[in-house]
Amino acid sequence: MEFTADQIASLLNGEIKGNGNVAINMLGKIQDATSGQISFPSNPKYENFVYETQASAVIVNKDFEPKKEVSATLIFVEDAYSSFTVLLEEYYKFISFQKSGIEEPSFISEDSTFGSDVYRGAFSYIGSGVQIGNNVKIYPHAYVGDNCEIGDNSIIHSGARLYAGTKVGHFCVIHSGAVLGSAGFGFAPQDDGSYKTIPQMGNVIVGNNVDIGSNTVIDCATFHGDSTKISDGVKLDNLIQIAHNVSIADNTVIAAQTGISGSTSIGKNAIIGGQVGIAGHLTFGDNIGIGAQAGVGKSKPNGNVKLMGSPAFDLLAYHKSYALFKNLPDLSKRLKQLEEKVLNLPTFQESK
Amino acid sequence: MEFTADQIASLLNGEIKGNGNVAINMLGKIQDATSGQISFPSNPKYENFVYETQASAVIVNKDFEPKKEVSATLIFVEDAYSSFTVLLEEYYKFISFQKSGIEEPSFISEDSTFGSDVYRGAFSYIGSGVQIGNNVKIYPHAYVGDNCEIGDNSIIHSGARLYAGTKVGHFCVIHSGAVLGSAGFGFAPQDDGSYKTIPQMGNVIVGNNVDIGSNTVIDCATFHGDSTKISDGVKLDNLIQIAHNVSIADNTVIAAQTGISGSTSIGKNAIIGGQVGIAGHLTFGDNIGIGAQAGVGKSKPNGNVKLMGSPAFDLLAYHKSYALFKNLPDLSKRLKQLEEKVLNLPTFQESK
Amino acid sequence: MEFTADQIASLLNGEIKGNGNVAINMLGKIQDATSGQISFPSNPKYENFVYETQASAVIVNKDFEPKKEVSATLIFVEDAYSSFTVLLEEYYKFISFQKSGIEEPSFISEDSTFGSDVYRGAFSYIGSGVQIGNNVKIYPHAYVGDNCEIGDNSIIHSGARLYAGTKVGHFCVIHSGAVLGSAGFGFAPQDDGSYKTIPQMGNVIVGNNVDIGSNTVIDCATFHGDSTKISDGVKLDNLIQIAHNVSIADNTVIAAQTGISGSTSIGKNAIIGGQVGIAGHLTFGDNIGIGAQAGVGKSKPNGNVKLMGSPAFDLLAYHKSYALFKNLPDLSKRLKQLEEKVLNLPTFQESK
Repeated sequence: MEFTADQIASLLNGEIKGNGNVAINMLGKIQDATSGQISFPSNPKYENFVYETQASAVIVNKDFEPKKEVSATLIFVEDAYSSFTVLLEEYYKFISFQKSGIEEPSFISEDSTFGSDVYRGAFSYIGSGVQIGNNVKIYPHAYVGDNCEIGDNSIIHSGARLYAGTKVGHFCVIHSGAVLGSAGFGFAPQDDGSYKTIPQMGNVIVGNNVDIGSNTVIDCATFHGDSTKISDGVKLDNLIQIAHNVSIADNTVIAAQTGISGSTSIGKNAIIGGQVGIAGHLTFGDNIGIGAQAGVGKSKPNGNVKLMGSPAFDLLAYHKSYALFKNLPDLSKRLKQLEEKVLNLPTFQESK
Repeated sequence: MEFTADQIASLLNGEIKGNGNVAINMLGKIQDATSGQISFPSNPKYENFVYETQASAVIVNKDFEPKKEVSATLIFVEDAYSSFTVLLEEYYKFISFQKSGIEEPSFISEDSTFGSDVYRGAFSYIGSGVQIGNNVKIYPHAYVGDNCEIGDNSIIHSGARLYAGTKVGHFCVIHSGAVLGSAGFGFAPQDDGSYKTIPQMGNVIVGNNVDIGSNTVIDCATFHGDSTKISDGVKLDNLIQIAHNVSIADNTVIAAQTGISGSTSIGKNAIIGGQVGIAGHLTFGDNIGIGAQAGVGKSKPNGNVKLMGSPAFDLLAYHKSYALFKNLPDLSKRLKQLEEKVLNLPTFQESK
Repeated sequence: MEFTADQIASLLNGEIKGNGNVAINMLGKIQDATSGQISFPSNPKYENFVYETQASAVIVNKDFEPKKEVSATLIFVEDAYSSFTVLLEEYYKFISFQKSGIEEPSFISEDSTFGSDVYRGAFSYIGSGVQIGNNVKIYPHAYVGDNCEIGDNSIIHSGARLYAGTKVGHFCVIHSGAVLGSAGFGFAPQDDGSYKTIPQMGNVIVGNNVDIGSNTVIDCATFHGDSTKISDGVKLDNLIQIAHNVSIADNTVIAAQTGISGSTSIGKNAIIGGQVGIAGHLTFGDNIGIGAQAGVGKSKPNGNVKLMGSPAFDLLAYHKSYALFKNLPDLSKRLKQLEEKVLNLPTFQESK
């Protein structure tokens, strides 16, 4: 990728001050950007870096008035943060979709269909009845079971695994070792203490613009026609466990190593920390926040709460209790002193 | 799969009321089953669905007396729950063992042996000296290292990995990305602060009817001749860590993301929640229950306990303490008030 | 591997007593070692086993004076523990580097370079511009992306995945399913509640003598030129999450299922328990210890602390508070009794 500052200004509806022909091939942090890179002061206190940076171009808010000479080409935009974000996104797409063509050996079943510009890495496996959209990138060792569907512009990284029947939308990224659609944990207890396996016959449906981290596991739903659902814009970090029949609504973000038990539904725009555990068959409304390592055992159908602790309750209340927990030795000592005082009160002794 | 209601009634030792010739090809939930499906009222309060269901057949207890007209064929059995379980198991076997034959390219060493009806997916790898039983299904990208053994009717899903020497019994399911037999975490500290690797030379032995979830890891034992042991009927969920020399006895069930440290042994019929951590070199008797996110640091050789907390103690006691933890601000305030009261007592002031 | 006791004594600078020609082909525990094995009493109380063992040779401290007849050949050394460790290391190297040659089909890009004695298993994938040192063992289904570097004597186990640009030093072991260099969890929130992906363009650099456990994930750094860094001698257990831009200094050991959030740096010689969570952008000095399941939210730049709890604080203080937490029902009851006593004090009643 190499663009001129003029081209980038045009993309961002910005105005150039300085050399519009300077070549840009990379994004960089303003503190240590070098020639050929474009940057922006991500923090107001970084203004000084605008004067010192070696970057070839810097994106600034349109009300920015340089107090010193600037060697970089400046691109004035409505909102530098969101403009840089647009640039990141474009750059991301650019670097993510470079691979194309077919490496051999790879495996495809005869009755699967493919859009244009698909990459299929060596040792990738495509089962029968699979439908793959345009510009899909399937890396080496990816496994796409029978009757899966993958929408346009999605990326299946090396060793990601889609069990039969999994559906993935467009602009999704499934990272290495992620498993979608494995059999949920469903076993019927028998009188002799053993368990019989309950066949897991549903699937996993992933919306658009979803990211699924490395080695994250999403189990399929139990019954035919049911799905474990990950909706548009959801971002799942690495090593997350999503059990059968869970549903996660739009733009919810979940940090690494969190686990959600079967049949629980999470609303939109939740922010869930790392190593959180959420019990099964619960319902959460929109905009919930859950602190790292919380263990959540109760539904919050109205959403709009912040939780912490195990079992979890209100975040602020948790912190208040926890501050006192840390102080328990003092509290215990004071109680003991008080007991002694009361016991030694003359009147108390008399009253006995 | 398509059976008549008569055939299913015969399998279940049940009696038919209605059309015994109706064709059944699927199991369904009674709330939303459709034509061609068989179901059962999993909950007494679902009795109304028996009258309304579109299912072609419904399994009911033999003492069930319809209060309204039923359009579905009824199959009266001794115990509807266990009968439906039998049906689930049969269906599970049916859908799980459909794959057969060999997809190419796949890799086998010359001195490995195979039973009948084996499926070997493309890019599956079978090392040397491997023994594989009848009706074993090895999915694409599965790795079976040298000298492994896999019993009849076991399924190794895509990308599951068995290090050299791993032994798996019959009717086991190993899900995608599960790793059996990797080197345990054994390092000998040196005077300079570095560590030397202790070679891990044992193996993993898995009994019969064991399920191992996606991306779960089971390390091999340290010494030659020793094994990390997962006994008959154990069900391990996804993303679990089982360290070297652990042993887990029959029919123990462990939920996702739990970790068990080295050389700990767990008794029969334990039910262990998700995200539990268990320290090393501990011994647990039969029938223990461990609540989600507990951190267990002490042996319970007699079993029959329920634990929670980190460090874990009795479950009920934990909940009592935790209720008071939530109430600590009130407790702290009452203590302070009491201190002030006592300090302000006339007699106390006099007695100073 | 088969050596004589004389050869081993020579390797360890030890002195032989007994038959120096006896053949040794294995290490064993002294309690159950058999003929052909060499062992050592790992614990002073195991001295009796020296007289009873079936091992062909036993390593003992040079001041050891047998009180009974010993049938095994004795090798007297300066320090039996460290000598056995040396032997373990040699044996480890021996058993770990047996594989060599190339199994087909495997995939290599034309412009990658390889040292001598490399093993490349079937279905292994080597991208373009990759540099691989001498005696590197790349197991089946391993994925080595474009422009990766792997130093001498390193082992990449089956299904381990190195995204493009990952650099691994010498004598490293990367276990099955480990993922190095996947995109970190970086998303820029938008006004409509959705997120735009921040491209993750850095890499992962792993030093020498590093072990990385099965299904552990290490994300790449965010910016070009930045790296997530795992330094020399670090030992990472299974299922660990290391986020973007984390750095871990020499000889730090981390147990299974721990997660470290973005941009946090950990000093040398840390010992971090299992299932620990560490927040992002924190700094830790050398020699920290973190108890299992702790949730660490504050920097400890001076190191030399032991932490526990969630949020974590001093380990001993945590245990004191936790002992009182377990005792809260008693403390609460005593407070209540005291309240009643004080309320019922004659003088208090008078003073009202």
